[in-house]
Amino acid sequence: MKRVLVIHGPNLDQLGVREPETYGSETLEDLDEAVRKAGAGFGLDVESFQSNHEGAIIDRLHGAGPSGILGILLNPGGLAHTSVCLRDAIASTRIPVIEVHLSNTLSREEFRRRHLTAPACRGMIIGLGRVSYIAGLLALNELIADKD
Amino acid sequence: MKRVLVIHGPNLDQLGVREPETYGSETLEDLDEAVRKAGAGFGLDVESFQSNHEGAIIDRLHGAGPSGILGILLNPGGLAHTSVCLRDAIASTRIPVIEVHLSNTLSREEFRRRHLTAPACRGMIIGLGRVSYIAGLLALNELIADKD
Amino acid sequence: MKRVLVIHGPNLDQLGVREPETYGSETLEDLDEAVRKAGAGFGLDVESFQSNHEGAIIDRLHGAGPSGILGILLNPGGLAHTSVCLRDAIASTRIPVIEVHLSNTLSREEFRRRHLTAPACRGMIIGLGRVSYIAGLLALNELIADKD
Amino acid sequence: MKRVLVIHGPNLDQLGVREPETYGSETLEDLDEAVRKAGAGFGLDVESFQSNHEGAIIDRLHGAGPSGILGILLNPGGLAHTSVCLRDAIASTRIPVIEVHLSNTLSREEFRRRHLTAPACRGMIIGLGRVSYIAGLLALNELIADKD
Amino acid sequence: MKRVLVIHGPNLDQLGVREPETYGSETLEDLDEAVRKAGAGFGLDVESFQSNHEGAIIDRLHGAGPSGILGILLNPGGLAHTSVCLRDAIASTRIPVIEVHLSNTLSREEFRRRHLTAPACRGMIIGLGRVSYIAGLLALNELIADKD
Amino acid sequence: MKRVLVIHGPNLDQLGVREPETYGSETLEDLDEAVRKAGAGFGLDVESFQSNHEGAIIDRLHGAGPSGILGILLNPGGLAHTSVCLRDAIASTRIPVIEVHLSNTLSREEFRRRHLTAPACRGMIIGLGRVSYIAGLLALNELIADKD
Amino acid sequence: MKRVLVIHGPNLDQLGVREPETYGSETLEDLDEAVRKAGAGFGLDVESFQSNHEGAIIDRLHGAGPSGILGILLNPGGLAHTSVCLRDAIASTRIPVIEVHLSNTLSREEFRRRHLTAPACRGMIIGLGRVSYIAGLLALNELIADKD
Amino acid sequence: MKRVLVIHGPNLDQLGVREPETYGSETLEDLDEAVRKAGAGFGLDVESFQSNHEGAIIDRLHGAGPSGILGILLNPGGLAHTSVCLRDAIASTRIPVIEVHLSNTLSREEFRRRHLTAPACRGMIIGLGRVSYIAGLLALNELIADKD
Amino acid sequence: MKRVLVIHGPNLDQLGVREPETYGSETLEDLDEAVRKAGAGFGLDVESFQSNHEGAIIDRLHGAGPSGILGILLNPGGLAHTSVCLRDAIASTRIPVIEVHLSNTLSREEFRRRHLTAPACRGMIIGLGRVSYIAGLLALNELIADKD
Amino acid sequence: MKRVLVIHGPNLDQLGVREPETYGSETLEDLDEAVRKAGAGFGLDVESFQSNHEGAIIDRLHGAGPSGILGILLNPGGLAHTSVCLRDAIASTRIPVIEVHLSNTLSREEFRRRHLTAPACRGMIIGLGRVSYIAGLLALNELIADKD
Amino acid sequence: MKRVLVIHGPNLDQLGVREPETYGSETLEDLDEAVRKAGAGFGLDVESFQSNHEGAIIDRLHGAGPSGILGILLNPGGLAHTSVCLRDAIASTRIPVIEVHLSNTLSREEFRRRHLTAPACRGMIIGLGRVSYIAGLLALNELIADKD
Amino acid sequence: MKRVLVIHGPNLDQLGVREPETYGSETLEDLDEAVRKAGAGFGLDVESFQSNHEGAIIDRLHGAGPSGILGILLNPGGLAHTSVCLRDAIASTRIPVIEVHLSNTLSREEFRRRHLTAPACRGMIIGLGRVSYIAGLLALNELIADKD
Repeated sequence: MKRVLVIHGPNLDQLGVREPETYGSETLEDLDEAVRKAGAGFGLDVESFQSNHEGAIIDRLHGAGPSGILGILLNPGGLAHTSVCLRDAIASTRIPVIEVHLSNTLSREEFRRRHLTAPACRGMIIGLGRVSYIAGLLALNELIADKD
Repeated sequence: MKRVLVIHGPNLDQLGVREPETYGSETLEDLDEAVRKAGAGFGLDVESFQSNHEGAIIDRLHGAGPSGILGILLNPGGLAHTSVCLRDAIASTRIPVIEVHLSNTLSREEFRRRHLTAPACRGMIIGLGRVSYIAGLLALNELIADKD
Repeated sequence: MKRVLVIHGPNLDQLGVREPETYGSETLEDLDEAVRKAGAGFGLDVESFQSNHEGAIIDRLHGAGPSGILGILLNPGGLAHTSVCLRDAIASTRIPVIEVHLSNTLSREEFRRRHLTAPACRGMIIGLGRVSYIAGLLALNELIADKD
Repeated sequence: MKRVLVIHGPNLDQLGVREPETYGSETLEDLDEAVRKAGAGFGLDVESFQSNHEGAIIDRLHGAGPSGILGILLNPGGLAHTSVCLRDAIASTRIPVIEVHLSNTLSREEFRRRHLTAPACRGMIIGLGRVSYIAGLLALNELIADKD
Repeated sequence: MKRVLVIHGPNLDQLGVREPETYGSETLEDLDEAVRKAGAGFGLDVESFQSNHEGAIIDRLHGAGPSGILGILLNPGGLAHTSVCLRDAIASTRIPVIEVHLSNTLSREEFRRRHLTAPACRGMIIGLGRVSYIAGLLALNELIADKD
Repeated sequence: MKRVLVIHGPNLDQLGVREPETYGSETLEDLDEAVRKAGAGFGLDVESFQSNHEGAIIDRLHGAGPSGILGILLNPGGLAHTSVCLRDAIASTRIPVIEVHLSNTLSREEFRRRHLTAPACRGMIIGLGRVSYIAGLLALNELIADKD
Repeated sequence: MKRVLVIHGPNLDQLGVREPETYGSETLEDLDEAVRKAGAGFGLDVESFQSNHEGAIIDRLHGAGPSGILGILLNPGGLAHTSVCLRDAIASTRIPVIEVHLSNTLSREEFRRRHLTAPACRGMIIGLGRVSYIAGLLALNELIADKD
Repeated sequence: MKRVLVIHGPNLDQLGVREPETYGSETLEDLDEAVRKAGAGFGLDVESFQSNHEGAIIDRLHGAGPSGILGILLNPGGLAHTSVCLRDAIASTRIPVIEVHLSNTLSREEFRRRHLTAPACRGMIIGLGRVSYIAGLLALNELIADKD
Repeated sequence: MKRVLVIHGPNLDQLGVREPETYGSETLEDLDEAVRKAGAGFGLDVESFQSNHEGAIIDRLHGAGPSGILGILLNPGGLAHTSVCLRDAIASTRIPVIEVHLSNTLSREEFRRRHLTAPACRGMIIGLGRVSYIAGLLALNELIADKD
Repeated sequence: MKRVLVIHGPNLDQLGVREPETYGSETLEDLDEAVRKAGAGFGLDVESFQSNHEGAIIDRLHGAGPSGILGILLNPGGLAHTSVCLRDAIASTRIPVIEVHLSNTLSREEFRRRHLTAPACRGMIIGLGRVSYIAGLLALNELIADKD
Repeated sequence: MKRVLVIHGPNLDQLGVREPETYGSETLEDLDEAVRKAGAGFGLDVESFQSNHEGAIIDRLHGAGPSGILGILLNPGGLAHTSVCLRDAIASTRIPVIEVHLSNTLSREEFRRRHLTAPACRGMIIGLGRVSYIAGLLALNELIADKD
Repeated sequence: MKRVLVIHGPNLDQLGVREPETYGSETLEDLDEAVRKAGAGFGLDVESFQSNHEGAIIDRLHGAGPSGILGILLNPGGLAHTSVCLRDAIASTRIPVIEVHLSNTLSREEFRRRHLTAPACRGMIIGLGRVSYIAGLLALNELIADKD
């Protein structure tokens, strides 16, 4: 099975607690479970990682390729709109990275319309809730296959 | 089989001709064929429509729901960044609409960073080439299923 | 009776269907009927035209004066905020044009605060629903009378 | 007869004196007379008030509803583009307020394109000279009737 | 007892009437009563003044120090975002001025995010309803004591 | 002797009190005395008026010409940067108006760099303290003479 | 003879009618006649096309090369400032496109200073009336010759 | 006693060391001691936490409610102006959060005028040095009481 | 007699030729003659210098003080809006510099509203034609006298 | 033969040396030779002038008309985007001036999209290399002929 | 020997891996070795520290002076453009800090043109690769010497 | 010895005279002497040139390479922020150019934050006074060595 990594950025540990009218009542564990299952369906072995620390996410991104990960699904949370460092970390990664968001960032506050990390990713999927991740796995699988 | 509609906006008839370094050498027929096949795999009957006329695209969007279409995959091309009318047409549509782009619009010219139609859609998938459409079908299928 | 023309821009064919919390449940036929009646009260013979095609609206504007129309009530829909071409078409028209909107465009999204076509019109009436049109006919009647 | 109030903001006392190429040669008395007559035709008893003092206009707005006024026609003059206080006063008013301007504010200086008070009103009518007021009365009459 | 002055700017006379979902149902008299009581608890003799006239508020600010007032709590209402004159009046005042707002101005409309008067004040307290004033009195008391 | 009017806007009554490092220790009476003397030297009978009320300043501007004043020196204070109404009042005045400021508004805060009233005046003199007024009288005298 | 195409965008059918102080009294037929004659002088067979429909212009651009046209002179009218789709259509065209305007777009309204289509063209010629087209033919002829 | 938490953001450990002309000579221990004492006076048991790590502050915010804390006083330091993640963390917190700053952020550099976290808080208190915290405790106490 | 220098910037040699509707028909010689005469009336010996070269103007500014000039009247022409170098040259000058303009720069094109050099001058006089210079000499005389 | 002048602005002396991927390998002498030849074909006697000094270019523009030059082709180089003085010099010139650029300035860096001098010219031709000049001569010849 | 500290911010651990076309093939160890050697040549004992955690960098900055470090060379990576907290940490440091970057940040993406931390440093050196650090050590040595 | 050139831009001839609180009391001769000495230490023969004329600086840049200069240290003064021509001249130079500034341009006025010439240079060194130049020579020496 091909190993891929799902990185959940700041505040995603609060899923189910945080603003349920925007993010739904599903917890991070529920989401990870669903994603793992869908990944297995695509022949992917999905690992997941959550942190509220920008530095820890960058460390993990740097370490992914060398440890045998073949692709990354990244939900940068609020860092998507503010972090040049995370953008640079993605650009330094040699394996494909796809950005995902649960909500439609473009239909929310003005400051969420500025996407700093997405231009450094292969693509981005937003607004589809849990399905953003599953569609992302499908795409990651294709990108990994293309490379073979 | 559930009927869904893929709308290709302006200039997508030039696929394979137009800027191949950005859009690849696949033609619109190739793309439609691939999308139809993938759709069938999800149990979807995929119809497709291309026009360079904003008005024709709006007319088609208005007509989709009443004619039995259950969901729409919309690649608005350059209209994504300029058309308030298309945005309003999407907002008046009662079936789910997902926006897709072949290229990563956020890593191109400044004027492509302004997304006017996406906020009126359920979600958006960008930068994954043909896979943007296939991942979009997966998502559309889920949204239709949720509604049942 | 003096002939005047009401032009309904993109998406107004969806009245009653589209975002009823913003635009009400009245259909375009209802609106046209009410407008025709009110026009007759002012001694005006009201014709109406709807299109989702910018080009068709411009063609109609160009043809109005030469065909004997004495004044135009124009609801440009979303084109009000984006179309330099429609603005130029209004500027090339020798009969009075008044812009009308059902909703109060200034209290909605940021991008609706930029009015591109209104500066080329004699005046603008917004936010009064069906009454925007009726008040517009009253004004058109005065402008036509002034010219006599 | 239903009582309505017309409020003329700063500099409207100079009508006929001030920039006649923009505002015409009619004086404020002429305008008020015309408006009163037209109002009577709609079954409205029109009172009018002019002040160059923002505070006095706000005081009058606050007092209108409690004193039996059923609707307000407000020409805020230059305050339309600068006064958050007047906007807040309109928002605190429970009777309908329609903003009117003699000239087409959108075709004049850049700073007149920012409308601060209009978003707090029901609607706005601009550019039609004296007819802006008369069309406003027609609309006010409809809004009052709707409420009954 | 140390005399302090509370100045309520435009539209605060409408408290309880104006937009209760934003400002609550308490009237200005209720607020003044509560503030007076809390002030007495801090050893402050609280006077209060409301006006919808920028000029009257500036006059009162100029007169406060010379008449024995030791500190001012100023709710400038909408003037907070537009008035350079009020800012200059605060800067010319030798006694401490603290700005207060009932609502969280920063989470409302874009134009309320520009604070013109606050930079000329010692500090600002926003978003805490009636408590904004009471916390302001506590602070004013400290500032006056520091000066002794 | 030719009658001219000096209008001092908001906060100029605080001269000598307000921010002496910016405005000096001279009071408004001192300034008016100096200006009257200098005016007499040019053959001008100088009257002066100060108010913190925008409305009162506008009223005075409207009344000046009809009462025999031949020219106006206007220090609008902070209104220079915010008041469209004052600008419109100046534009409606048929006698020459020259704007003056004691300080160099362009070397102070960003918001003082926007001059709204000056474009409606004949000219502007800034940054020269008391001399701004005296040079303004010299200029007013020339403008009045030119008109004879 | 080498075939070239002149495309006239929206409102150019109104030449001679529309704002003669900006565009002169020459009609589109006059212009086309002059252009054809000048083209013949350069050994060019000039065809011309006018439409008020963005979509029709895009369709024509796509079809030009395949039908044997060697170069295009494009006057996009107002689309020059608003249409990303037209820009993309030009970029997908393999034959040289030169943009022309009758008036000097840079000395007109602010919104005409933003050129969206010109960066995708080989060059642009503005402000020279009928001569903009003739100089454009000269240049097109050179570009075609260079390619041989 | 009701437990509340004071969170000091980046660089507040340098109080007394860092720019004393802006922040005074009091150390963080002095401040915490004063705050604890004042809190006790309101019947509050005040805990405090300082970190230079955005992630650690977010972790602490998430953990506060579940561990029995009833309200939070948050001085985000420079994160107030840059962190969408901290804003989202506050929005996900179910207990009241009040933002405090020692200095008047609005009278300092331009980039401090953009408040990203404050709109997600109940209110904000700035510019009052140590008193910002004490007034904040008073307010927090009221908000907790209101909820009971 | 006290020596002062008048510097005329780029294009002022074209006075009387250049845009007479903006600048009048007086030539530079006429202006210099009038200024010299007025200067003599104030006890000033007025020298004048014109150049279209920014560098030459800067050289002259640097040399003025050391050569015994006591004050400078500077009309920077278009450099007023673009030259950081000229601004720095003024700031390095130890004698008073007053900026003058014949026209009212603030009522012309948008790009003339940005004053780069004026903030480095003592004051500025605009819009009064020849009188701008004469009022400037009066002011310069006062500034020189103050320094004695 | 009719005399016309070609002015080459800063850095055009480096043609063939400077960034050949943008400007080609042709030297200024080559260009001038080609232009002279083409000019002779139109019956024009072409003189040329190059300078890196803004002031020298302005001097030459002022002197052209009086010395018998009938029209000017101006390549202002980088001054096109920064020089208000050059713009004013063009505006003061009574003979027609056409701006030319070798490269397509609108498809290069952001700061080259601001055209300051072109609005003061009759027209502009960009992006056509040497042909920009030749097409410019054709146009200049027409403008001179029109004037006869 | 005088102790100085080199701080490498986020992503600099990827040197040699990350975007070699921008940053070269040298690793962080290579760089540190070269810097240590050059430092020894200036009589400096160079320590180095790298972290992807903003908080850890701030902690290290706070601790440097108290632990005997005499000066700091700081490459903040992407934090240079986004971190107000790092800026504040630099401002609270009493020993000299010089910012260095390997690449020329000003010739890259738009968002890298905003330098937030550099204004709080003594100086900045950019674009010279490894030499940026060595020149920085030379400068740091001079600053430390000056202080002795 | 390798020949390098130091170019001092406008106003640097005023060093020691001009704003000593920003630039220190050292004169240009002192600086040149120190730079020459330091250069000799690196094996560089340093020539220097100062001018207040943009054109003269561009001429010198163009001439440097052909005359045997191997590298340039350029302090463009205020031209750094305004001159597209100087930027183009640097881009046309085939020898390395490093920009230096005595002061930290990023911590001064807003308009000095825009660096137009630096992106065309290899690197930039700012804020280190005389040491900016010496560190620049060190770097220039390395760049020249690299090229050998």
